[in-house]
Amino acid sequence: MSQSARTSRSADYFPEPASPTTVRIIPLGGVEEVGRNMIAVEVGATGDILVFDAGFQFVSEDTAPGVDYILPNTKYLEKNAGRVKGVIITHGHLDHIGGIPFMMPRFGTPPIYTQKLTSVMIQKRQEEYPDVPASEMVIVEVGQSVTIGSTRVKFFPVTHSIPDSMGCSVETPQGNVVISGDLKLDHEDGIPSEREIKTWGEIGKDNNIFLVADSTNAEKDGFSIPESRVIQTLEDIIRTVSGRLIIGTFASQFERMIHIMEAAEKFGKKIVLEGRSIKTNLEIAEKTGLLKVNKEAFIQAQDLGNYPPDKVVILSTGAQGEEFAGLMRIATRQHKHITLNDRDTIVLSSSVIPGNEIAVQKLKDNLYRHNITLIHYRSSDVHSTGHGNTGELVWINKQVHPNFFMPGYGYRSMTTCHAKAVEQSGFPRENIIIADNGTVIDIEEGTRLNVHKQRIPSSPMVVDGFTIGDMQEVVIRDRQSLAKDGMFVIIASVNLKTGKLRKSPDIISRGFVYLRESQSLLNEGRLLIKKTIEDSTRNMNPIDLDYVKNNLTDVMAGFLFSRTNKAPMVIPVLIGM
Amino acid sequence: MSQSARTSRSADYFPEPASPTTVRIIPLGGVEEVGRNMIAVEVGATGDILVFDAGFQFVSEDTAPGVDYILPNTKYLEKNAGRVKGVIITHGHLDHIGGIPFMMPRFGTPPIYTQKLTSVMIQKRQEEYPDVPASEMVIVEVGQSVTIGSTRVKFFPVTHSIPDSMGCSVETPQGNVVISGDLKLDHEDGIPSEREIKTWGEIGKDNNIFLVADSTNAEKDGFSIPESRVIQTLEDIIRTVSGRLIIGTFASQFERMIHIMEAAEKFGKKIVLEGRSIKTNLEIAEKTGLLKVNKEAFIQAQDLGNYPPDKVVILSTGAQGEEFAGLMRIATRQHKHITLNDRDTIVLSSSVIPGNEIAVQKLKDNLYRHNITLIHYRSSDVHSTGHGNTGELVWINKQVHPNFFMPGYGYRSMTTCHAKAVEQSGFPRENIIIADNGTVIDIEEGTRLNVHKQRIPSSPMVVDGFTIGDMQEVVIRDRQSLAKDGMFVIIASVNLKTGKLRKSPDIISRGFVYLRESQSLLNEGRLLIKKTIEDSTRNMNPIDLDYVKNNLTDVMAGFLFSRTNKAPMVIPVLIGM
Repeated sequence: MSQSARTSRSADYFPEPASPTTVRIIPLGGVEEVGRNMIAVEVGATGDILVFDAGFQFVSEDTAPGVDYILPNTKYLEKNAGRVKGVIITHGHLDHIGGIPFMMPRFGTPPIYTQKLTSVMIQKRQEEYPDVPASEMVIVEVGQSVTIGSTRVKFFPVTHSIPDSMGCSVETPQGNVVISGDLKLDHEDGIPSEREIKTWGEIGKDNNIFLVADSTNAEKDGFSIPESRVIQTLEDIIRTVSGRLIIGTFASQFERMIHIMEAAEKFGKKIVLEGRSIKTNLEIAEKTGLLKVNKEAFIQAQDLGNYPPDKVVILSTGAQGEEFAGLMRIATRQHKHITLNDRDTIVLSSSVIPGNEIAVQKLKDNLYRHNITLIHYRSSDVHSTGHGNTGELVWINKQVHPNFFMPGYGYRSMTTCHAKAVEQSGFPRENIIIADNGTVIDIEEGTRLNVHKQRIPSSPMVVDGFTIGDMQEVVIRDRQSLAKDGMFVIIASVNLKTGKLRKSPDIISRGFVYLRESQSLLNEGRLLIKKTIEDSTRNMNPIDLDYVKNNLTDVMAGFLFSRTNKAPMVIPVLIGM
Repeated sequence: MSQSARTSRSADYFPEPASPTTVRIIPLGGVEEVGRNMIAVEVGATGDILVFDAGFQFVSEDTAPGVDYILPNTKYLEKNAGRVKGVIITHGHLDHIGGIPFMMPRFGTPPIYTQKLTSVMIQKRQEEYPDVPASEMVIVEVGQSVTIGSTRVKFFPVTHSIPDSMGCSVETPQGNVVISGDLKLDHEDGIPSEREIKTWGEIGKDNNIFLVADSTNAEKDGFSIPESRVIQTLEDIIRTVSGRLIIGTFASQFERMIHIMEAAEKFGKKIVLEGRSIKTNLEIAEKTGLLKVNKEAFIQAQDLGNYPPDKVVILSTGAQGEEFAGLMRIATRQHKHITLNDRDTIVLSSSVIPGNEIAVQKLKDNLYRHNITLIHYRSSDVHSTGHGNTGELVWINKQVHPNFFMPGYGYRSMTTCHAKAVEQSGFPRENIIIADNGTVIDIEEGTRLNVHKQRIPSSPMVVDGFTIGDMQEVVIRDRQSLAKDGMFVIIASVNLKTGKLRKSPDIISRGFVYLRESQSLLNEGRLLIKKTIEDSTRNMNPIDLDYVKNNLTDVMAGFLFSRTNKAPMVIPVLIGM
């Protein structure tokens, strides 16, 4: 059986440093979810800890209302900060870089090793947090090896939806640990391209003791649609559509965005950019020399009227239905210069990120109100994922042929399917580890597996306003309760001698019922408050306001629930006088 | 151009009754969303208003926290209650029956006309609302015509995922109005079955002036997977799986549930039922004679140990990842008698309802932790929708060949795609109406279309605890704000002569920050409250507490935001003494 779910959670397990013949791998985040990716590799021979990626995860309002992001738990790194020699970032997506400003200072702000484009994206983000110390940035190139601390790390190119994506191989005396980063394969009908064969062939020559690979798409079999087909489809659309064309995508689809601009220029069409993140990424693409489109190809939205509709391509953010992004503003007639009509074609060049379904439905509905033509990924090959299916993943696994394998990056359903596929391809079941966040995996002398029984601290940390720390269940529960039923504050001045109220109590309520239509409820409530307090204090000497408060809370919660079927948070404020 | 989006919202437009040669159709709900289906047909010749379906819609916590359900706006029916002669229910799903206990009393609790199974489901639901008057129930059969008020209505069978689903045809002197209800076609490789050809051929012989048809699946082309193939696939799985089999579905998949039980019995397997709604529906199926399975085929979960694993089929609720339903309890080891292991096979015989993606992911993750084998609708034909694709919809449209057509039941993206498909099949564009909820559509003398410029009141009504009424934006906004940032209540006793505080102010906060770790923030806050109040009241005579309150709110909101990046609801309570 593959090693899985055998470890127990611990709030304070911090194992001794790995022995000289041990290589230790700890997934700190990203193996129980899509997002907050972070993997620590500890080389016993050098004592170095290297960290791969520092991402965050978006969180749904249902699960954790008010929380901005979820982060990996970094306590282990904090405890061992002196040995953390560097953070290697595989590529520039937020699930790999988003946590940098929040997490790095917690373990000594070690230097970051990454490629050019990624470094620019990290720096751009860092500008939003001017008070946070920035790491030293070491720009690396694929094909290169770098010594971090006393450990050699080799970088190699991988295919993903953003340029400068790379995989890493950590060299240890016992053999290499290969971290794939996010990736798919460049292929034609399931035959990997020359470049892939060369890259992975090289990696395969090493003595690889451990592989972590991307599981995001491991619930799908076969090979994913190659990006080249998507680019071709989009080119065909750009070339042939007779009316105005609006392409919605997300800014993180960096490579595709560039191809769309190049195609537009090629067919003599002007390009309008809508949305801050697309403009930011265009700047980054220019700065890093990735964009080869003539400046004159770009026009402003207010100049659209000067060109025939079939001579412009509008590239917009907001394909996930984001409320204030370009596409939604266009769809809801809030855009100053772009009004839709039934000769417009809109391409949603993206899939729907789980959790965004309702927002995307709203976007589509608003678009269709203009009787436009909509092309989306279900009707045409206008989107492909950046993550390989099992056909690709198994091929990669065979090239690397590691001693041990851990499916990384993904929900448990994905890592399990990845494990099953690799196992079915002939990989020994007992050498596959399906890990939880915080699982400590020791490879002894390159050949023996030792999964620690306890996990290091792995409960998620959250960014909640300026607060970065443990998820506070009590705060989250209160928010959920307030969201559902609101609150009901009672203010009463109690004469501490007589137990009588000085005047009718005040009530402050929000989010409970519509007060304007609830006057009789409030009036009855006031009477009941008065009666409850005066009954509770009768013959009480001295008057114990805490007792009265508890009693009042119970009585009023019961009253309000019986009358409204809602359970607002009842907060009594009794002022003794 | 198809008539669409040309009408304007109105809070109080109530048109005069339809003239004797007018037939009026008003979609009250369900043409801008999936759910809360309700269509009014007003026959000018008789003055009767007939209502088709009375559904509710589930609502996401993000959009309207704390709201239980959304309902169609019934103000038009309330205004014309005397003329509402009956409510016809096409089938027993909640988006067609869920609003009955909430809405019917608002317009006079008219009689309900429906088939046997649907009537039992309505009555079962009504039992949960014992204080609500129930409608008289008239059981009808397909093939039958009934006079409701002075209007004849004909019922015909349609194919859907629950037995006793029907379409309706309202006979008027100008011609018939056909309401499809939810439906798909029974077909083989795109060839409709004999029964469908006969049913729709009969309907096609009438002079049909208007058709409303189901748009739920109109974004998909071709023909949907026939349920017979799903049944066959499930039968094959039941027959061949060698370990224990657990099938998750939703209870509304009534027909499939029955087929699964019959197949289990056929292959000599015992059936365990998990989940209240499945048990309820089994009772209903027995009561209405739909279930032909021997009682002895059923066993209790605690007796599972008495049978070999391959001799039992567990049928469970919770395929949508519902937190407390059978499947989730099994997956999270909370079930007393069912513990999963790696020889179990689990079938999720359902698609994922939009909005449930995150819950279903959690379910899958928990299931995979047991290393089970999972079969779902993306990997195998274990689910089919109850709603036809455009191939089916166009075929139905051609059979009915109405003068005018309105795509019903669905989000705008669906109704628009339905309209486009029907138009492409040769239907005159100008005779298609893409309506909003509340659009008033008059057919004059059966041949002329008159869409009113104004819509009747159509803003959604909500069920929020015991309250049924307009959606109160202010309450919803407060809930959203409380969910995100919590609240911060300040209580201070102010000496009305000196403006000084009697003692350090009290603070009650919930859902904002973790108070135990925020003592310095609270201490600073108290000092600032004291200072703000005392500064505001200096030289003020008499002291205006409202002014002080406003000032205090502003100062404290600013302070808290600058310190935490959160914006809790600040509520000052100042007691003058």
